[in-house]
Amino acid sequence: MFPTDPVSNLAALIRCPSVTPAEGGALSALEAMLGPLGFKVDRVVAKEAGTPDIENLYARIGTDGPHLMFAGHTDVVPVGDEAAWSHPPFSATIADGEMYGRGAVDMKGGIACFVAAVGRHIAKHGAPKGSISFLITGDEEGPAINGTVKLLDWAAESGERWDACLVGEPTNPESLGDMIKIGRRGSLSGRITVHGVQGHAAYPHLADNPVRGILQLTRALMDPPFDNGTENFQPSNLEVTTIDVGNAAVNVIPAKASAAFNIRFNDRWTAESLIAEIVARLDRAAADGALRPGRAPVKYDIVWNERPSHVFLTRNNALIDSLSGAVEAVTGRRPQLSTTGGTSDARFIKDYCPVVEFGLVGKTMHMVDERVALADLDTLTGIYETFIARWFGHVTA
Amino acid sequence: MFPTDPVSNLAALIRCPSVTPAEGGALSALEAMLGPLGFKVDRVVAKEAGTPDIENLYARIGTDGPHLMFAGHTDVVPVGDEAAWSHPPFSATIADGEMYGRGAVDMKGGIACFVAAVGRHIAKHGAPKGSISFLITGDEEGPAINGTVKLLDWAAESGERWDACLVGEPTNPESLGDMIKIGRRGSLSGRITVHGVQGHAAYPHLADNPVRGILQLTRALMDPPFDNGTENFQPSNLEVTTIDVGNAAVNVIPAKASAAFNIRFNDRWTAESLIAEIVARLDRAAADGALRPGRAPVKYDIVWNERPSHVFLTRNNALIDSLSGAVEAVTGRRPQLSTTGGTSDARFIKDYCPVVEFGLVGKTMHMVDERVALADLDTLTGIYETFIARWFGHVTA
Repeated sequence: MFPTDPVSNLAALIRCPSVTPAEGGALSALEAMLGPLGFKVDRVVAKEAGTPDIENLYARIGTDGPHLMFAGHTDVVPVGDEAAWSHPPFSATIADGEMYGRGAVDMKGGIACFVAAVGRHIAKHGAPKGSISFLITGDEEGPAINGTVKLLDWAAESGERWDACLVGEPTNPESLGDMIKIGRRGSLSGRITVHGVQGHAAYPHLADNPVRGILQLTRALMDPPFDNGTENFQPSNLEVTTIDVGNAAVNVIPAKASAAFNIRFNDRWTAESLIAEIVARLDRAAADGALRPGRAPVKYDIVWNERPSHVFLTRNNALIDSLSGAVEAVTGRRPQLSTTGGTSDARFIKDYCPVVEFGLVGKTMHMVDERVALADLDTLTGIYETFIARWFGHVTA
Repeated sequence: MFPTDPVSNLAALIRCPSVTPAEGGALSALEAMLGPLGFKVDRVVAKEAGTPDIENLYARIGTDGPHLMFAGHTDVVPVGDEAAWSHPPFSATIADGEMYGRGAVDMKGGIACFVAAVGRHIAKHGAPKGSISFLITGDEEGPAINGTVKLLDWAAESGERWDACLVGEPTNPESLGDMIKIGRRGSLSGRITVHGVQGHAAYPHLADNPVRGILQLTRALMDPPFDNGTENFQPSNLEVTTIDVGNAAVNVIPAKASAAFNIRFNDRWTAESLIAEIVARLDRAAADGALRPGRAPVKYDIVWNERPSHVFLTRNNALIDSLSGAVEAVTGRRPQLSTTGGTSDARFIKDYCPVVEFGLVGKTMHMVDERVALADLDTLTGIYETFIARWFGHVTA
């Protein structure tokens, strides 16, 4: 039987407790849906020393181009306080027209709808005029080391090439049809440590209070703003996420102070130009005597966190117009083309093909009582089905 | 035998391991010196729920005025890394003309010299033309709850009244004769907590980062300066001694940030007027939109630490001139009359009589290898002896 009902697809997926890094049966459940549709399914286990092995899945139907990829993840975040849930988080209970469960919107729901959409497309039109593939990871909510990056590497080395990708993450803030994501800001994090000289609070001239230095440096990171936004992006924004000194003695000037920050940046910057700007600001602030009159410049060091996420913007009319048109045809609403929000695995996929994101309404994601309206599942399936037809029609016309 | 040798007095005191709150035999050793001189000695145990009982000592010779008090403490700070000491910290070992030991300068040395000075005075002149008393606590280096404050209360309730007090804490930065303390700045501490709204670093408009608020508030505490100093005092100075957020997640905006501060303030302020000024600064900074454009004022609360130390300045010519003249007569140097440095028990004594402070050189206090030059013990004993003669001569003239 073709898996054309998104509600039963989603119930099967929710019932698998696939909290990262556990597969929990979710990929097997997906494989059981894709097999009858004619997909060739590969289960790819990714390993890395010091991290748990992770199961991933790649499935393709068709051998020729054009080639459309649907990307997503079956792993889910922990349930939190299970007792606080109205219905058990892996029960897929339906109440008042909504299905409850961890992953309902983030993002087993998106997978359930895309599977149903492909099933309906094949039921009506036969095999697609090209290829459709699923690139599904079990490590999106965790450290993401053994997830999409390695699965893309594996597929590319196996000869896979794609013309476009749709990521099924929840993109709609309030209701289905609000928003398609066509790019993402970059993300860069770092930690500054200021080295002072410890001493007694009554003899500040014998000490060098690093709190003064950290105040000067962190303020320079926040003021002035980095930019006012660009055509397609919000202004870049930096948040100092912590300042820590840990000095419990009120009459002691501490030796050291540190602060961490994260900046979400737009296409006015590359990670490299932004690092240069930040270092220039810090060096200027270190030499500023406002809070430390007559002192030598603040002594500090900075450590950048791992690899930054690079900013990207997708400019591909076939992909964006097909999706946007499908949303409007089904919902009657013209979705906003947005680059807001956090990072997603789209930042890895963009190195292989144009990528956009559209899925369910994200309001309950990561919360107790995560849930999805059954009506939304039906609507999203309709949008996906229309999108598939339009995209193949567009690129093969 | 009269205890007229400061070196043997000090050796006896150092050999008592009187790390707060332990009496360690130190008060008994002192009692054994004062008895033969004709002092009436009271051992006063102070108690308070939740703190260790503390032994203190009050001793007086004479029944009439004028009445000169010598104040100090026999308790010492811990030895730190005992293996790092050149000689065991309670051995009173003499090497190269210096006596080593915890408390050598802070302040068993001062007590040893004053006892010797009184001994020499009585040996030459007989009983003083009035009264001399010792007010010695065992709780100066600890929480100071069962120390000088309670001992003063006890003595005052017993009918004791004083005309002047000399505190024997180490007051000389480099060499004997540098500095007499004739007052002290006040000290006031507090902790500010800023309450924000937690959120994701990619959606700062849905959150309210308390780090922005704490930066605004703490900067307002440091800039501009509170004053430029007064005739007898350094400028008031505030140090932010810690800022703590404790947020380990780089993509999360935290809910709360706190900072502690300590201000050493001069006679331009009272504790009350200073609190009013600080609150006014914080309220102005909370409403400032520089780092939080378009936001409601920063939500914060402030907790003031215990009782502040009040600023004081002693203006008593008999006391200051007698001491200053004694220093000059013995060392040939005119000591600086200073109000610098931290707080001391003088802040409690000033409510009963005029008080000044003069003792040894403080350079090694609280350090490994705390030690005192034997020559300094002899010189200080000479200064104290001269001071006693001059003060009684002055006030009885």
